Amino acid sequence: MTRIAICAPGAPIRPEVSEKVTALAKSSFPHLTLDFHPQCFAEAGHFAGIDEERLLALLDCANDPTVDAVWFARGGYGSDRIAEDAIARMNASAKKKAYIGYSDCGYLLAGLYRNRIGRPISGPMPVDVGRNDNGACVLRSLAWFAGSEEGLEPTIGKQPTVAFNLITLVMLSGTPLMPDLTGHVVMVEEVHEYLYAIDRLFFALMPYLKGIAGLRLGSVTDVPENDRPFGQTAEEIAQFWCERAGVPYLGRAEFGHTADNRIVPFGLAAPPLGA
Amino acid sequence: MTRIAICAPGAPIRPEVSEKVTALAKSSFPHLTLDFHPQCFAEAGHFAGIDEERLLALLDCANDPTVDAVWFARGGYGSDRIAEDAIARMNASAKKKAYIGYSDCGYLLAGLYRNRIGRPISGPMPVDVGRNDNGACVLRSLAWFAGSEEGLEPTIGKQPTVAFNLITLVMLSGTPLMPDLTGHVVMVEEVHEYLYAIDRLFFALMPYLKGIAGLRLGSVTDVPENDRPFGQTAEEIAQFWCERAGVPYLGRAEFGHTADNRIVPFGLAAPPLGA
Repeated sequence: MTRIAICAPGAPIRPEVSEKVTALAKSSFPHLTLDFHPQCFAEAGHFAGIDEERLLALLDCANDPTVDAVWFARGGYGSDRIAEDAIARMNASAKKKAYIGYSDCGYLLAGLYRNRIGRPISGPMPVDVGRNDNGACVLRSLAWFAGSEEGLEPTIGKQPTVAFNLITLVMLSGTPLMPDLTGHVVMVEEVHEYLYAIDRLFFALMPYLKGIAGLRLGSVTDVPENDRPFGQTAEEIAQFWCERAGVPYLGRAEFGHTADNRIVPFGLAAPPLGA
Repeated sequence: MTRIAICAPGAPIRPEVSEKVTALAKSSFPHLTLDFHPQCFAEAGHFAGIDEERLLALLDCANDPTVDAVWFARGGYGSDRIAEDAIARMNASAKKKAYIGYSDCGYLLAGLYRNRIGRPISGPMPVDVGRNDNGACVLRSLAWFAGSEEGLEPTIGKQPTVAFNLITLVMLSGTPLMPDLTGHVVMVEEVHEYLYAIDRLFFALMPYLKGIAGLRLGSVTDVPENDRPFGQTAEEIAQFWCERAGVPYLGRAEFGHTADNRIVPFGLAAPPLGA
């Protein structure tokens, strides 16, 4: 059996999400055990419980020697508030696990990667079961837990890679969570931001991309319509800032806030969990 | 005569704005000359002309020895793209001027302050003539040009001060535009951002506020309604992050995206322009 512990470091999920994902796992990968921590359903204003509650739930999952992987239930904002404390209190068992999520969970993935704790991985989360895709997105992470490499982002190669939501990476870039990205392929995606805001985020990000192997752009979705057209597409914006900073622009990547979101292990890809 | 040159480093204004502000100045402060650079009305996608056009217009205003102050027509995003180049090409005359604006113009104010060029000042801009306030907001800057201290932010005291739009300060914080804020009162305001995004911005900002004298919160306006309440007010968010980082929270400040926006000279307040 492979045991997956699930907690919500940012916003909560509804019980239907855990029910649907548990049913999917049972029918497709019966040797996976999914343990949804009760904290996934807690509510305190915006968050899935107050900071202390989310922190303790994450530590319950990460520090449990019987757990093989920690799966973040969803993003939705809030993991930045607990990431440093969580990392400081992780034990030897936490250092052997895989940690999978994306979006707001990038704060945790970054901090884990910087501190060489376990295997941080950008990939679909339980909340993605809500996509209109017959579970294809969430099944990609379940299959990876079960030993399949099929869900890996197709451009991943011999260079170490990281994948982040753009605003999340910018927000953590000057903080103690920021890993050294030298020599890495850096993938960024964005959702629900104006194009001018995406341009502004690249301005803020570029000082931190010195010495990277190159940048790839994931999906850019749900861009709100502004009072006037920006004049460049999201990809043209990425190319503009890469050229200005002397960073190689490597093209698109298949990850982001869509049903096509693929799996991107941080660093050099190692075999999947059950392999 | 005091000569004010006006350019638009980000987004354009409409001719009605310049007409109204010129009329206000003529009737209230006839010894002020306002020169709106034609670039204020240029359009290239989101921006008031392409980067080169905005850069050259700013240099026209800043490097002209017959000009006493450069007034930014509005924010609206875009000054980050030209700020470094502009500062690198400013001459001796540029170093004697006052530069007034706020919002997106914070990139320029920051870079000028860091490089000790002239007198960067947060204050109302020509576009504020569009507020439903009989011109009170924009008259505050005009009066300062004419020698009045009446429009100064009332809490300004004996400590050096800066005032920024929160997201603008976060975006520039890791870039070559960022000034040393040690010992400063740092004022931040925000407009049209979700409370969770404001919380996230404070997370990102706190590493850069080490050693400041304290933080003051300006206005926080047009906060969009989220799908659930955040659970803290904007001021509680500011207090939370200040306490967490050991930064003194000093209370509110009268500046931001409202008709009450006051004047905040960067550093220690010196007498107004015409005094």
